[in-house]
Amino acid sequence: GKMTHDAKMTYRIGLLPGDGIGKDVITEARKVVETAASSFGFSVEWREFPYGAEHYLNTGEILPDEALEEMQQCCALLQGAIGDPRVPPGVLERGILLKTRFYFDQYVNLRPASTYPNVPTPLKRGEDMDIVVVRENTEDLYVGLGFLSNEEIEATVDMKRPSYTLKGALSLKVDPSMKFAAQLALATEMGVRRITRYACNLARRRKASEIVLATKSNAVKELYGLWEEIAKEETSKEGISLKLVNVDALCYQLARDPSGYGVILCPNLFGDIVSDLLAGLTGGLGLSPSANIGDGLSMFEPVHGSAPDIAGTGRANPLAAILSASLMLEHLTQVEASEAVKNAVLEYLRAFPRQRHPMELGGEATTSEVGDSVASIIQR
Amino acid sequence: GKMTHDAKMTYRIGLLPGDGIGKDVITEARKVVETAASSFGFSVEWREFPYGAEHYLNTGEILPDEALEEMQQCCALLQGAIGDPRVPPGVLERGILLKTRFYFDQYVNLRPASTYPNVPTPLKRGEDMDIVVVRENTEDLYVGLGFLSNEEIEATVDMKRPSYTLKGALSLKVDPSMKFAAQLALATEMGVRRITRYACNLARRRKASEIVLATKSNAVKELYGLWEEIAKEETSKEGISLKLVNVDALCYQLARDPSGYGVILCPNLFGDIVSDLLAGLTGGLGLSPSANIGDGLSMFEPVHGSAPDIAGTGRANPLAAILSASLMLEHLTQVEASEAVKNAVLEYLRAFPRQRHPMELGGEATTSEVGDSVASIIQR
Ligand SMILES: CC(C)[C@H](C(=O)O)[C@@H](O)C(=O)O
Ligand SMILES: CC(C)[C@H](C(=O)O)[C@@H](O)C(=O)O
Repeated sequence: GKMTHDAKMTYRIGLLPGDGIGKDVITEARKVVETAASSFGFSVEWREFPYGAEHYLNTGEILPDEALEEMQQCCALLQGAIGDPRVPPGVLERGILLKTRFYFDQYVNLRPASTYPNVPTPLKRGEDMDIVVVRENTEDLYVGLGFLSNEEIEATVDMKRPSYTLKGALSLKVDPSMKFAAQLALATEMGVRRITRYACNLARRRKASEIVLATKSNAVKELYGLWEEIAKEETSKEGISLKLVNVDALCYQLARDPSGYGVILCPNLFGDIVSDLLAGLTGGLGLSPSANIGDGLSMFEPVHGSAPDIAGTGRANPLAAILSASLMLEHLTQVEASEAVKNAVLEYLRAFPRQRHPMELGGEATTSEVGDSVASIIQR
Repeated sequence: GKMTHDAKMTYRIGLLPGDGIGKDVITEARKVVETAASSFGFSVEWREFPYGAEHYLNTGEILPDEALEEMQQCCALLQGAIGDPRVPPGVLERGILLKTRFYFDQYVNLRPASTYPNVPTPLKRGEDMDIVVVRENTEDLYVGLGFLSNEEIEATVDMKRPSYTLKGALSLKVDPSMKFAAQLALATEMGVRRITRYACNLARRRKASEIVLATKSNAVKELYGLWEEIAKEETSKEGISLKLVNVDALCYQLARDPSGYGVILCPNLFGDIVSDLLAGLTGGLGLSPSANIGDGLSMFEPVHGSAPDIAGTGRANPLAAILSASLMLEHLTQVEASEAVKNAVLEYLRAFPRQRHPMELGGEATTSEVGDSVASIIQR
């Protein structure tokens, strides 16, 4: 995907605006990235992909493998939001979002949760938070090995992933004849090792010497026991100390006193929960970006949903998408551009009058005016 | 366990003080129950069980089946807290706490989360919360079907529970030779049905017409899909409406704006997390009671841990244990006594000077002085 024209780097970025406000916020993220590109001397070529509810309802197609192969020609993907009340819940989430994460083996789901200037938090102790959840993104209950049956489950298990294949068989029977469901949660040595290593590197970049790992091995022994074992090995190799905490106690602590937390490493499902909780405890989903990072193609997306009720009205807050674009630029090693975008968001929230803030944050600015404001700061 | 002497009901209660502050708080719960008993004309016969870290370290015994059979002669169990730094995490939790829950098929884990007078919450919007988490307590990832291996898992699955038996086999192989763990999460029709019915009854008692169900079927289809399907059937039979929410979105919402929540129904693992979060968002673990209820013997316990660092110092807050005793009295159909205990706690927090509150809540009263204060209100 990278090319140089006249000594100028060009990045081909795959855009998946998706549904509802996804389209609105992606327009602004794109605007801001283009501004950053011209300020920092690189250029961007956009390749738009139509997948989402509209495309599915019109064609029956969710996300074909050919599209995923085409995406390989991009340097990164930038997503808006997926989901529509006309489509049964889960179909697009699994068929687009999770499929992309798994296909490209995007094993890191990075979810920064920070407080922002002039953005209230629900907590009384409004101290600065600057936490990053490093969520494993390819294993756990998310592997999709679920089985539903009356009385008896007989299934073969077959899961091909870029880094390993799992094969097997499952046979389960419940003595009274009744429906039951069984779902396999998985953790592999490699899966835990690579995400722990990522968390250690991130801790070092943040000049931290410790990471916190959320597990639940007191109740779920083997799965989270493996997590603890491998994470201990890996952190000690990396010279980072590891603090183990049960996920329930962690959520309790984050609600009571989030100060002191930095890098929080989580298995997939706990990462989903803890990162949303932290989004709630900081600036909200309107300011929560995320990155799905792998050794191949990576994907960047705001954590918020498609909010179809306000789509196209100008009420959507594009800051989470813009902050996701900043994470993307960092990943593309355009570190200065990435920082300029992030600092522009901070400066905008710090210095622009409340009235010019997003409506979601109590201001009066439309989605596109917010994008313009952030872009104008980058251009200064 | 119930007996009448001279037309006076006697309840035999099994006491498991356990470890650390467990012993301290159980002493106060017992004091308060005895006070309530003499005020409301029943009596209590205590049967103490020694299980916990001390017993385990001295004898190697965790919780023998004979003890569980002996417990059957009780009307209810009242637990303190389990856990000790000298015992590897999980051993006592699984061997005592989870074993008891499973053995007696205590399928309801009830976790009220309320705000209390003069007890600050971490949230700015300090509105009254009065939420109950109804947590399924026998299934999910908690069934203990976990497997850990290098390269290949070959296992037979065999789980006997009072209400059904699960048998089966599991064979899994990962192609690169590496350690991996697989853990089975289970949901049965019966399991979901009975807990949903319980939640509906509770909603009705609270004059609510809706319950909220926390799932994650957008990512984990079969397991939580079954939950949604059966909970829909059951709530519609019961004439209660069901609101589905993903657990991540629920935690977000609870942090941002918990108002409007009443009965929250959760699968086991989500219930563990959501109830601890809610304890955090309300008065804290010092005020969080719980009940493990089944059709046989039920168990009541504060949610907090054994806090060995402050054991025996008088710093432990016994209110969660006292509130757990109130739940126990309600379960024993001593409804007036149950309410008297709960109201005494409320009155104590409302009317007694701050200085006489538990140290954990900023007061100066010792564990036993707190118990005395609550008991004195009941006696009035
Ligand atoms: C100690 C642990 C096994 C237990 C659980 O996970 O259920 C505890 O956290 C609780 O909530 O009672
Ligand atoms: C939509 C859903 C499948 C997804 C997840 O659970 O990962 C979302 O909640 C997220 O966190 O990105």
